[in-house]
Amino acid sequence: MKTMGMSQLALVAPRGYPCAEATARASGADDVLARAEIHTTVLDAVRNCGCVLATSSRTRNIPWPIIRPAQAAAELLRSARSGTSAAVLFGPEHAGLKNSDMEFCNAVIEIPATPAFPSLNLAAAVQIVCYELRKAVMESAGSTVGQATGAPGATADQIQLLYQLLERYISQIGYYHPGKPRLLMRRLKRMFNRLQPDQNEYNILRGILAAAEKAARKK
Amino acid sequence: MKTMGMSQLALVAPRGYPCAEATARASGADDVLARAEIHTTVLDAVRNCGCVLATSSRTRNIPWPIIRPAQAAAELLRSARSGTSAAVLFGPEHAGLKNSDMEFCNAVIEIPATPAFPSLNLAAAVQIVCYELRKAVMESAGSTVGQATGAPGATADQIQLLYQLLERYISQIGYYHPGKPRLLMRRLKRMFNRLQPDQNEYNILRGILAAAEKAARKK
Repeated sequence: MKTMGMSQLALVAPRGYPCAEATARASGADDVLARAEIHTTVLDAVRNCGCVLATSSRTRNIPWPIIRPAQAAAELLRSARSGTSAAVLFGPEHAGLKNSDMEFCNAVIEIPATPAFPSLNLAAAVQIVCYELRKAVMESAGSTVGQATGAPGATADQIQLLYQLLERYISQIGYYHPGKPRLLMRRLKRMFNRLQPDQNEYNILRGILAAAEKAARKK
Repeated sequence: MKTMGMSQLALVAPRGYPCAEATARASGADDVLARAEIHTTVLDAVRNCGCVLATSSRTRNIPWPIIRPAQAAAELLRSARSGTSAAVLFGPEHAGLKNSDMEFCNAVIEIPATPAFPSLNLAAAVQIVCYELRKAVMESAGSTVGQATGAPGATADQIQLLYQLLERYISQIGYYHPGKPRLLMRRLKRMFNRLQPDQNEYNILRGILAAAEKAARKK
């Protein structure tokens, strides 16, 4: 949960707390564990929450609305933004949540596991829900995915020049005959368009083409 | 990965295999582990794959295109549907992938962790990527859209051959000196990886390289 930017952990009737093994396993995130709220009942833990969602892999016989993790994240965020806390309830590793625990929940999150082997462990379920929450937070913050190539992209003009140089070169070496159908050039252009080279890469490609022309001219 | 409906695991140079502890920990999914392919190198493992995506939390000098898990899932699915295998590459728990391992990759998947604590463990990273894949599979299961048109992708083997031909050619024409730092080749490889040529495009590129070599040799 810490990797996904979350820090408010509440534990209900933990078997042992603090627990040396748990602290050791939380390496790097032990601050979250150390600051956990401890409650004796689920109701205590969610008392101040507006939206409470449960997670369960046994959704067959329950009368709660079933929602997917992404939808759950949106609802939790909306609730939190409205000024009321929101919570996701996870059950113990093997037993899962009891029906009595679910009474405080607005809906049940179903992680779309394969029916043949739906038994996610607790850590996996927490990871997925927190991941969807992180995505929802980032999307709503207007964050854009970084196009990671450091250099600015080649301009359309530069790409046009590359086409021309390439066409001249492959004509020169006899790979391409301008009289023939222009399917080859169209395919090459499609490749370049997909490539979206940056300035460094554009310079490399121009350099290779220049060297290639020179090498072919010397014959 | 089994909970998300995936079964094809490949291990590269595992420290011990089979490993009693690993088998015990895989409880319920030990069949996936037992059927794992074992390879000595990353290239061996991805040899027949069209789309190869890496996961990494480290910033690198030469940035690969960075994509989000959901986009990665869509690309992997498209590649697999076109008839060529697709793969996601995960590094060892602490060290992560080496630069040399990334040379076979088309892009790097960045899980949107919080910058303050971005260190997902291996299991968490695998869970998130597999979850997005499962979502993509389920979403596309109902729709007739997304069936790949066009030729199957070039394989990693074919791309390796292209690198070798290109390196030989640009050495031949004096654009590249193998003695010099290998940054240029890495940049070119990154471009090819991003391009993900299909079989037709692969044939065009090979054809141009063959013609170029011939033209330079005649001088």
